[in-house]
Amino acid sequence: MMKRLTLITICLLAFTGLFAQELANFAGRQPVISPDIKGNEITFRVSAPYADEVRLSGSWQADMRSAIEMKKDEAGLWSVTIPAPAPELYTYSFIVDGLSVTDANNVLMQRDGTRYLSVLLIPGEVTANYFEAKNRGNLSQVWYDSPTLGLNRRMFIYTPYGYETSKTKYPVLYLLHGAGGDEDAWSTMGRTCQIMDNLIEKKLAKPMLVVMPNGNPGQQAARTQLIPEKPFDRNNPGTPNAYVHSIVKDIVPYIEKNYKVIAKPASRAIAGLSMGGGHTISCTNLYPGFFQYICPLSMGIRVTDENKATYDADFRAVKKAGYKLYWIACGDSDFLIEQARTLDATLTRLGMKHTFFVNSGGHTWTNWRIYLNNFAPLLFK
Amino acid sequence: MMKRLTLITICLLAFTGLFAQELANFAGRQPVISPDIKGNEITFRVSAPYADEVRLSGSWQADMRSAIEMKKDEAGLWSVTIPAPAPELYTYSFIVDGLSVTDANNVLMQRDGTRYLSVLLIPGEVTANYFEAKNRGNLSQVWYDSPTLGLNRRMFIYTPYGYETSKTKYPVLYLLHGAGGDEDAWSTMGRTCQIMDNLIEKKLAKPMLVVMPNGNPGQQAARTQLIPEKPFDRNNPGTPNAYVHSIVKDIVPYIEKNYKVIAKPASRAIAGLSMGGGHTISCTNLYPGFFQYICPLSMGIRVTDENKATYDADFRAVKKAGYKLYWIACGDSDFLIEQARTLDATLTRLGMKHTFFVNSGGHTWTNWRIYLNNFAPLLFK
Repeated sequence: MMKRLTLITICLLAFTGLFAQELANFAGRQPVISPDIKGNEITFRVSAPYADEVRLSGSWQADMRSAIEMKKDEAGLWSVTIPAPAPELYTYSFIVDGLSVTDANNVLMQRDGTRYLSVLLIPGEVTANYFEAKNRGNLSQVWYDSPTLGLNRRMFIYTPYGYETSKTKYPVLYLLHGAGGDEDAWSTMGRTCQIMDNLIEKKLAKPMLVVMPNGNPGQQAARTQLIPEKPFDRNNPGTPNAYVHSIVKDIVPYIEKNYKVIAKPASRAIAGLSMGGGHTISCTNLYPGFFQYICPLSMGIRVTDENKATYDADFRAVKKAGYKLYWIACGDSDFLIEQARTLDATLTRLGMKHTFFVNSGGHTWTNWRIYLNNFAPLLFK
Repeated sequence: MMKRLTLITICLLAFTGLFAQELANFAGRQPVISPDIKGNEITFRVSAPYADEVRLSGSWQADMRSAIEMKKDEAGLWSVTIPAPAPELYTYSFIVDGLSVTDANNVLMQRDGTRYLSVLLIPGEVTANYFEAKNRGNLSQVWYDSPTLGLNRRMFIYTPYGYETSKTKYPVLYLLHGAGGDEDAWSTMGRTCQIMDNLIEKKLAKPMLVVMPNGNPGQQAARTQLIPEKPFDRNNPGTPNAYVHSIVKDIVPYIEKNYKVIAKPASRAIAGLSMGGGHTISCTNLYPGFFQYICPLSMGIRVTDENKATYDADFRAVKKAGYKLYWIACGDSDFLIEQARTLDATLTRLGMKHTFFVNSGGHTWTNWRIYLNNFAPLLFK
């Protein structure tokens, strides 16, 4: 028997090697290592023998427009070595003769809506929760009907470790993306599964489902699915609200029918970043009491003489209906910090208990990962 | 109430617009449309004002190394218009001053192992099944323990439309990727979900689960998950077989325990492309009768004086144990066509009923999508 296995194996290895060789010939490249992390230094490399200028642009720079010059060796390999920035997940690109390109030698790439960037990981304490825990939950791409939007749509659903065989019911966090994003954003750039796995494994957060819908009302799914979009008139005031209504009328009922979840306000949380923070505020104002945990991130409100009375009435309705947590977060250099401050001040003025979590930084995934790490432990307790 | 909604909406739109503007400023680009499909012509565009030479390389070309020259206008926008190739999903890249880059204006990109390429879709009859059906199945990323490999690993599982609420049990296709790929390959490049949705909706294929594991024994999941790999000695003859054993010992039991499936040989199919075709042959030879539907794609065997008797004994055991379908497929210009012919001849010589499906083309996803479209309707009937 062992001889048979060995023979089969040798044939397999021969084929595999042949194919790998074919691939290597096809790509026509010598292996280039980039990014190359050694101690406290990182070297980036790109082979571009005919380029006149190559620069490196990374999200660790205060101003991403001030790219770093790279230097060419005799073989046409451009490189630059920089001190490692603080531990975090960063994005970067090369600017080759003025054209922004991803790093072909780095498998780690992220898509933000229509834009791809290479990803650099500097591991450390702050990123510990962004990586795999021992006990991993699953992630499903689920299609559901949205009668409100007249579309069959896709959402991503995280189920915590042990969900499949558990006899208990779980609470649910509805987690919304921002403008330019889609249902893929929180689980890729946001590292939601890893953050939740870690928090739950360390017993810092309750086991919960996380439902990540698509907040673009004309899309059935992320554009990568190649499905034509339904035209929605962005100037029609009903357009964003149609999506907000669909959360309560279509998505929550689907989840509560098909999953082992607790169908009660005290077991429903809603959170979102930027546009999704707007959806969060809008949804909880339109349906007071439906979600008892409310977390708008990097978003707020802009109060004018015209809309002040309306906002006040809306928030008073939320107060009257009751809630367990109102948790606002924003970076101090976020371009929406003033709106977040206005939301904070409005809730204070109306005597509504809440938290205003202000940290450094701006409108970034670094901050949204930090916020998820901070508010998820507060839910359903 | 309507007034409130309108006010909230206006604020939301203002924020969204602001953010979109910020993004546009940040990217610093005018919108460029590429690829631009008009009638029977396609124009590709890339803005690279400082490049000296830009070429287009696409998988529709017989020889991908003979790239097409693009021309620069006064604004530094390079473009080329070509006649549309036959309907299919193609990949392409731009070669900018010798550097191969993806098309930054095209959201459609595929990852093949570590390599990213832009995707061009020319719709037509042949691609009809590659797009969304009305009734869509779900796709889950599922973690399971593999005691055989000593790793917690990820696989992708397609469940057909209606699975969640159905009271019936389903058969299962175990679908294996090739060298360089991972558990993501069949559902992205292979468009497995769309093909199965279409075949099942048209009642051409039986509703079934499709399980897509990771065939690289040292990987817990695709490299995009950022998980360090377990070193496996590729020269150790046990290495590929350890994975093959894990299919039968770890994966099938997990599926049959946790899903509504029929736990019988006549309800188990195994298919794979290239290295995965090798895994298919190896697995069915090691466990005769365990899978009753056997489909090696773009793969075969290399028979020598040394291994002939072993192969014969293995295949005779498969024959004796019984099977419902042995379906071999290969393109006539595939670099493994001779090995596929040898497998065909061996089964013929041993009196084993089988199909040898030979079509044009080579070792490509075009062919693997065609094969899935052709063999899935033959399963479990």
